[in-house]
Amino acid sequence: MLPPIDPTSSAFLLAENRSMPMHVGGLQLFEKPADAGPDYIREMYEYMRDVDEIGPLFLKHPHRSVRTGGQLVWKPDTQFDIEHHVRHSALPAPGRYRELFELCSRLHSTRLAWERPLWEAHIIEGLADGKVALYTKVHHSVVDGVSAMRLLQSTLSTDPDKRGMPAPWGARPRKPSSSAPAATADTGSGLAGVPMEALRTAFGITAEAAGLPTALVRTLRRAVRNETSAVSLYAPRTIFNQRITGARRFAADDWPIERLRAIGKATGTTINDVVLAMCSGAMRAYLLDLDALPDAPLVAMVPVGLNAKQSQIASAEGGNAVGAVMVQLATDQADPADRLTAIHRSMKDGKQGLSSMTPVQILAMSALGQAPAIITPLLRMQGIVRPPYNLIISNVPGPRTTHYWNGAKLVGTYPLSIPINGMALNITCTSYDGQLMFGLTGCRRTVPSLQKLLTHLDEELVALEKAAGVA
Amino acid sequence: MLPPIDPTSSAFLLAENRSMPMHVGGLQLFEKPADAGPDYIREMYEYMRDVDEIGPLFLKHPHRSVRTGGQLVWKPDTQFDIEHHVRHSALPAPGRYRELFELCSRLHSTRLAWERPLWEAHIIEGLADGKVALYTKVHHSVVDGVSAMRLLQSTLSTDPDKRGMPAPWGARPRKPSSSAPAATADTGSGLAGVPMEALRTAFGITAEAAGLPTALVRTLRRAVRNETSAVSLYAPRTIFNQRITGARRFAADDWPIERLRAIGKATGTTINDVVLAMCSGAMRAYLLDLDALPDAPLVAMVPVGLNAKQSQIASAEGGNAVGAVMVQLATDQADPADRLTAIHRSMKDGKQGLSSMTPVQILAMSALGQAPAIITPLLRMQGIVRPPYNLIISNVPGPRTTHYWNGAKLVGTYPLSIPINGMALNITCTSYDGQLMFGLTGCRRTVPSLQKLLTHLDEELVALEKAAGVA
Repeated sequence: MLPPIDPTSSAFLLAENRSMPMHVGGLQLFEKPADAGPDYIREMYEYMRDVDEIGPLFLKHPHRSVRTGGQLVWKPDTQFDIEHHVRHSALPAPGRYRELFELCSRLHSTRLAWERPLWEAHIIEGLADGKVALYTKVHHSVVDGVSAMRLLQSTLSTDPDKRGMPAPWGARPRKPSSSAPAATADTGSGLAGVPMEALRTAFGITAEAAGLPTALVRTLRRAVRNETSAVSLYAPRTIFNQRITGARRFAADDWPIERLRAIGKATGTTINDVVLAMCSGAMRAYLLDLDALPDAPLVAMVPVGLNAKQSQIASAEGGNAVGAVMVQLATDQADPADRLTAIHRSMKDGKQGLSSMTPVQILAMSALGQAPAIITPLLRMQGIVRPPYNLIISNVPGPRTTHYWNGAKLVGTYPLSIPINGMALNITCTSYDGQLMFGLTGCRRTVPSLQKLLTHLDEELVALEKAAGVA
Repeated sequence: MLPPIDPTSSAFLLAENRSMPMHVGGLQLFEKPADAGPDYIREMYEYMRDVDEIGPLFLKHPHRSVRTGGQLVWKPDTQFDIEHHVRHSALPAPGRYRELFELCSRLHSTRLAWERPLWEAHIIEGLADGKVALYTKVHHSVVDGVSAMRLLQSTLSTDPDKRGMPAPWGARPRKPSSSAPAATADTGSGLAGVPMEALRTAFGITAEAAGLPTALVRTLRRAVRNETSAVSLYAPRTIFNQRITGARRFAADDWPIERLRAIGKATGTTINDVVLAMCSGAMRAYLLDLDALPDAPLVAMVPVGLNAKQSQIASAEGGNAVGAVMVQLATDQADPADRLTAIHRSMKDGKQGLSSMTPVQILAMSALGQAPAIITPLLRMQGIVRPPYNLIISNVPGPRTTHYWNGAKLVGTYPLSIPINGMALNITCTSYDGQLMFGLTGCRRTVPSLQKLLTHLDEELVALEKAAGVA
């Protein structure tokens, strides 16, 4: 008997089409070790390709036939071909980050075919600064974005001299990883402790095979209709909230957490508030450039961790649960300080609102963040045609210390997420080794000049420093 | 009404699976013009990408639904995304031809998704010698290999100073191309004048929607059973005649036609005979290395052009028809001169046999070459389990003069063809500007160390020169 694919994973597979590939990606940057030879990247590729045994997660592919009664099952790939999954690529000259982002955009645009295990890894050379890039892509039905990044991190070590470390897809004994990321007090209440898996399970149990239960939809509907609520889902229409195509554009950059922390200290806000204020200011500038800024403030869906007291959803693994807060980004206000204050208040209200919600309501909110592609048609069915929010901004804490893979120093790690119809832009941040790393994934058609957002993010950070008097 | 896809094209679409992608490919090498700037390849990519209008051939994709009555139809792509089809790639260091062939192998291994128009073009930089490579891939249901190469060539010019030339996928007025390849007397009776389209049409008329008519199968069966016939299809089992996987390996090289012509003159054989003798000697050496040379000589299926007198199949466009000859490659003989003599005789016998065949028989033979993936299951249905031949060797004449694309000089053009189950290796040659260009496409698993065949081809050419006393 082949194992059936659980309803949530099936939903990710079935919701997929050419304009909405349902895979998450990650871009990692490594510095070569001091003793690297001229063929280092090729050797790294060959080492990653020539694994003894592949982990079971990386060997299964979806399958459906008359013999499975039309049900989606996971089937082991009997013709597994590692060269299809692990690839050695290079950047065109001049090998700037622009060329790297172009390649990642292209790789992130292509759907994974069901006839093979749903993942790819590209070891990329040709960066002018000599770094090695690794782009990985895994289908959302196999693993969610956070778990994918954690999986990758769990194959890293804090020891620069350690060698003989396996590739992420190599089979190895399951054990709690010593390099698992820890939530830091100063990054706010993040998604510490991998609650995604727990949520997936909870959501999987709540949802029936045929779709979401009526109760969940009813809850959503109530929340949507209640405009004055702290969990209000009303958001203005923007260019981000339209149908998307299958083409992607990706950009990424990072800034020292110390700079954000200083702003937070001086203004009595959290680092997460500063992240949202940076995004808010950048969105405002970007939309003003395009003459497309709505009068009403943009609303971001921000996943947050729930503490044990708030969370009544016991996770099988004892992890914390995840909720989602709708944050008004105050994009209607011109002053950076005003925006930061408004965001701080909106976030606080949202969290308080969340604490007064029932577990089912929290689940419903969370589902919005986890599976918007599934929720959106349901909302439309309920006669709700305005977007419940304008974009998703996630901030996932990562390791605080320097990590290595067989002596190569990890210097950057950026998430590539999933734009969907009605939600053409996604901002996902992660912290690592003192830097806050932003990954911006958008529909290439719907979100023009995505890379400009990086400049705006930088300008906004400077403006916030100035406003907070810490510049 | 969307146009239905003709039966032959449908067959190529439906015969396709993960281990048998049904697209043909081409690798072109260009020298940069003298005035090329440092960003030449990027500019070439942008020029090829930013076409005003796409030709209709490159805008349609296969579609099948309840509304089409389950029939396959061509549907225009309403979300056409040029960046998905035209791509800028680079080679890893050190940028040898080895790296280029690796990239082409990988690109040739991936199936084209039906949800988009069935083609891709990759402008590739990073060759250590500074050349620009262009790998193109088109589904066999859209165009056959020869037509694909002709299409590409028709966008070239003999004028090095001509600029403003369109990309092959750009829309342009239909007209007989001035750069259409001409058959040369000395390359033997090749496939001059694009008879493939004509054949495709003829074959399409003969075949019913449900498959090949019984008459064709009966003809095939007769031919197969008649061991003594000049069109005998009996061939020994070899490592090439087994199930294949979806991974490909490609290698290519070229040799001056003058060297082959000298051998032909000295021995009273044709250039095509010498091509076959090179292949024969290379196969023998390759199989001896692997301790896998069968006692009986290998049989190659060789497509040949038929002159007007032979051909009673009138083509709508007045072109010649194509037949196929089964040539014994004399791989059981150790002496290069003996092999060449035997091949010359076998080829002559085959052509004579062909001239005595009925039009239906010729069609049947041709079908073997055109659609082996479709024929093979039919043969198996008829209880014929031995391979009808061991491999396909095609030699397609191309332009004799130097051609340019917006000033970039075409210096190489190599075909990538379709290995199928039971036929894991394919050798396709084309002539261009005084060189004979070999493209070898094989299943990566079934045909190990494919690149060694290039060395063997070179050694065999030297051996033939020595035997003919022209070295």
